[in-house]
Amino acid sequence: MKTLKIPEATIIRLSVYSRHLTEVDRKGIVTISSGDIAEGVGVSPAQVRKDLAYFGEFGTRGVGYNVKDLHRHILKILGLSQDWSVSLVGMGNLGLALTTYKGFRERGFIITSIFDNDPKKVGTVVNGVEVMPVDKLVEVAKANKTQIGIIAVPSQFAQETADKLVEAGVQAILNFAPVVLNVPPEVELRNVDLAVNLEVLTFNVGTRRS
Amino acid sequence: MKTLKIPEATIIRLSVYSRHLTEVDRKGIVTISSGDIAEGVGVSPAQVRKDLAYFGEFGTRGVGYNVKDLHRHILKILGLSQDWSVSLVGMGNLGLALTTYKGFRERGFIITSIFDNDPKKVGTVVNGVEVMPVDKLVEVAKANKTQIGIIAVPSQFAQETADKLVEAGVQAILNFAPVVLNVPPEVELRNVDLAVNLEVLTFNVGTRRS
Repeated sequence: MKTLKIPEATIIRLSVYSRHLTEVDRKGIVTISSGDIAEGVGVSPAQVRKDLAYFGEFGTRGVGYNVKDLHRHILKILGLSQDWSVSLVGMGNLGLALTTYKGFRERGFIITSIFDNDPKKVGTVVNGVEVMPVDKLVEVAKANKTQIGIIAVPSQFAQETADKLVEAGVQAILNFAPVVLNVPPEVELRNVDLAVNLEVLTFNVGTRRS
Repeated sequence: MKTLKIPEATIIRLSVYSRHLTEVDRKGIVTISSGDIAEGVGVSPAQVRKDLAYFGEFGTRGVGYNVKDLHRHILKILGLSQDWSVSLVGMGNLGLALTTYKGFRERGFIITSIFDNDPKKVGTVVNGVEVMPVDKLVEVAKANKTQIGIIAVPSQFAQETADKLVEAGVQAILNFAPVVLNVPPEVELRNVDLAVNLEVLTFNVGTRRS
């Protein structure tokens, strides 16, 4: 399967399609057209067909896609046919919001360990998981076979947190701290900057005005 | 200025470049090459030049870009040469994380009003802003000339929140609830799904394995 040149925007849309297919499947609908998917998520039918075409032929012309099959395929492409063990580091407001974010568990991202250095937080239980001190991170994350680390610590602690996650053997890091992190090339790194979302909006508002 | 066909990925990178330029400017550096920017943010120099080329010629060949000029230009492109008045609706963990998110204020996104329907939250003051009941939203957001609404309420209340924000006259809505919202075409809508970020990572991890 050729998957190396898939644009990230396509991956993001696949993720959106799969959410829509979950809903459609729940309603008991068996087949769906690219037009139906397009309408459900607000993109063009041509875009849906183009995105799915990256991964081979799923549908039958004139009939559409089998909902369950297509959904299973997309989940597999996204790496969601398995659960992922996630370590969350940093239990500030954002960390707390992430632990209670339903979307993670629904998609198979299971927070199996939580770390913070605040003595008031260590030992408390959040969503069924005990908060541990950060100096336990490497040992615990290794023992849990943690695959993904989420960094929600203040910027000045982000690099040392990343180093510990790498030492623990994670395959991927999602970083919410607004700093550039250095990780070895074998570790996937993604930075989330919440303000960027607002900037895309204000750019678009400005474009309309001019 | 032709700005209609700019890919969103370019806008997101401009946002990243501008953060880097803030740092560079703080260090007192006067000129910068596309290679320096590229290295600072982890993309290729050709990508930097291509992104900037959408908006005309900024640099001087062999000399590079004037840091302050380039920074000012990018901020203007992103709509950040002004402050934006923001209403935040929903004071759960995510709402609380967003009110204390430093990146918003730094970039000129000022949360001027906060709404929640929980009587325990109404009347409390968060980061200097009093939490008000949602039935005050239209009136208060209008009075504040609010331009952007952030929806951080549970999914089942997201559409009615969007309707109120539209009635209040916002130009743009950032939606964190995992539902498709209907807004009039003149209102910019952007959905943030935190799980999508993890899915891009797991897709990439899967691609490496295969």
